[in-house]
Amino acid sequence: MNKKYLLAPGPVQIPSEVLLEMAKPIIHHRTEEFEAVFANVQVLLKELFQTTEPVLTFASSGTGAMEAAIVNTHNRNDRVLVVINGKFSERMGLIAETYGLQAELIELEPGEAIDPVIIEKFLQENPHTKSVMVEYSETSTGTMNNIEKIAEIVSKTEAILIVDAITALGVVPVPCDKWKLDVVIGGSQKSLMLPPGLSFLWLSKKAWKRAEISNIPKFYFDIREELTALKKNTTAWTPAISLIQGLSVSLNMMKSFGWDNLFKKNQLLMQSVHAGIKALNLELFSANPSVSVTAVKVPEGLDGEKLVEILKNVYGVTIAGGQSELKGKIIRIGTLGYIDSSDILVFFGALEGALKKMGYSFEWGISLAAAERVLYE
Amino acid sequence: MNKKYLLAPGPVQIPSEVLLEMAKPIIHHRTEEFEAVFANVQVLLKELFQTTEPVLTFASSGTGAMEAAIVNTHNRNDRVLVVINGKFSERMGLIAETYGLQAELIELEPGEAIDPVIIEKFLQENPHTKSVMVEYSETSTGTMNNIEKIAEIVSKTEAILIVDAITALGVVPVPCDKWKLDVVIGGSQKSLMLPPGLSFLWLSKKAWKRAEISNIPKFYFDIREELTALKKNTTAWTPAISLIQGLSVSLNMMKSFGWDNLFKKNQLLMQSVHAGIKALNLELFSANPSVSVTAVKVPEGLDGEKLVEILKNVYGVTIAGGQSELKGKIIRIGTLGYIDSSDILVFFGALEGALKKMGYSFEWGISLAAAERVLYE
Repeated sequence: MNKKYLLAPGPVQIPSEVLLEMAKPIIHHRTEEFEAVFANVQVLLKELFQTTEPVLTFASSGTGAMEAAIVNTHNRNDRVLVVINGKFSERMGLIAETYGLQAELIELEPGEAIDPVIIEKFLQENPHTKSVMVEYSETSTGTMNNIEKIAEIVSKTEAILIVDAITALGVVPVPCDKWKLDVVIGGSQKSLMLPPGLSFLWLSKKAWKRAEISNIPKFYFDIREELTALKKNTTAWTPAISLIQGLSVSLNMMKSFGWDNLFKKNQLLMQSVHAGIKALNLELFSANPSVSVTAVKVPEGLDGEKLVEILKNVYGVTIAGGQSELKGKIIRIGTLGYIDSSDILVFFGALEGALKKMGYSFEWGISLAAAERVLYE
Repeated sequence: MNKKYLLAPGPVQIPSEVLLEMAKPIIHHRTEEFEAVFANVQVLLKELFQTTEPVLTFASSGTGAMEAAIVNTHNRNDRVLVVINGKFSERMGLIAETYGLQAELIELEPGEAIDPVIIEKFLQENPHTKSVMVEYSETSTGTMNNIEKIAEIVSKTEAILIVDAITALGVVPVPCDKWKLDVVIGGSQKSLMLPPGLSFLWLSKKAWKRAEISNIPKFYFDIREELTALKKNTTAWTPAISLIQGLSVSLNMMKSFGWDNLFKKNQLLMQSVHAGIKALNLELFSANPSVSVTAVKVPEGLDGEKLVEILKNVYGVTIAGGQSELKGKIIRIGTLGYIDSSDILVFFGALEGALKKMGYSFEWGISLAAAERVLYE
């Protein structure tokens, strides 16, 4: 009879409206009905990506779209720059190397954001660089990079800018056209409030030109095939039909709420989490915190993995711990997607309960009061 | 208020039990709950594939697993043999060529099955052939190849046998171990009664050895990464959580029904469709008809596309038409997955109605009676 709350940085809670849409009897994908749903999704995805260019949809998780982003816009041996400040940017570097690119890696301390000037200098000194790959919001450390500034720099060069925006889209503005981004990657199980299984890829005209000459072999993730299909309101290979039907509902919910209201809400939720964390004398992990996921240092002497376990098993609240070398050292609270102030209060209640159990001392209610003040004052 | 019936060769109807399972609040994938579901799915998938070797699961449609099958088991410039008797085997050839394999294509007339002796001869004359790729059930023409016999031939050579069993698994026996198959491809939206978005890949020990030395670059579909993850009851990249939860239910339903009962039921449904078709003086398209999908020649003077349209719009029955050069020339009736005798009667009622409307002459009820005799006598 106890309720469960999911506050991980993905997957996130799914609204009943979306779950029930996906539970309807399935329709065939080579029909006018499906094409109408897909056409509608296209229009809404363009609003989400703030663009007039098409947004491609793959039946895959986000890593698939990451691979598509890289293999479609390069030739073998291309020199590329990858900004690494966590597990997901590291993955972009791995993909680049797998496909024979000469990847220059800038490795930052986890939690650090890239100083755009470093990229500017690098591109001046290495004018043959074909692309710059960077995370908008590095989910593994809860860190946001200054994409607007980076895009300003990269757009003046021959290089294209590849942005993993999986936990940024629908959380903060991603104005693809205005900022002159080139390749933007998205996934379904984040702000789009769906199960994992769909990924998205957007390209600028500059990036599409790259796709025309790219000599890296690809088939399932060949974006030229997808673009041809898209023009007929369908996908090259069998689409994940039910997820796309769910997407149509979730995008409509987001649009009805209002894109700007959504961004404001996410800011407020993030600020309330920061306030509660500080009230507990805990410390943020990131130097430039992400709006979608807040990483918090686990205090000395406490076991972060146990904290996550108690939150889940005693209080029904699922958040994420640290990955790889950050295991046990940080906790990560997702505030993206179908989430509101009520979830924040539930979270801090659970966190206070768990911390008390673990012997960490503070005044009962102190984080709840701090969060409330941000949310309701 | 009119009901809809889906009798396409995929996607197929989805049981409410499965739809409702997928409509439950989502769980996080890096948890014991998910790992328990995935472990259970593993056991059942092994029963489906009749094997003791692991079955990999990808978040992709079937084409993704097809790519995985090919890129993981070859080196560039490998000589391979692709048996082409329709659109899906053609796709295997395209993937092979995309990734730099030297593909020898045996192109059969659509609807024809391969004579295994041709493969035997080819392998004798071309002993350096690294693999043979063939469809178990070619969905585009409703044709079944004699996989048991082909496997007997290929297993005696150095080559591996890659079988697309997307519309064969769960319809007819696919005894991977017993028949000494090497690579078997599956998809979720067929007999597994799920939406599209999951694909499956099984490899023999002989094929896994190939994977260890394969030099074709891959990342998202790298089966070595998946195998490592599988041993921890998870996936390398974010899994399509809700589909895997649904899969757990659908596999349990199949197992409860009994694997052999399932195969018998599918045979009977196929025979009843054949009987009804013949009673209407219509002709099967394939020389060696598939159990999962029956392709029927559209009689001279009738428009097959219009027939499919009337079935759908007037009678609520969705079947498939022909693809590419077979457009308008055949219709295809799927009898796989969540389907039983009631659907067959509904189908022939609709078919008789539509054919009468189009001026084709026969005695009312003749196909229904013929189907009934097979189903209920």
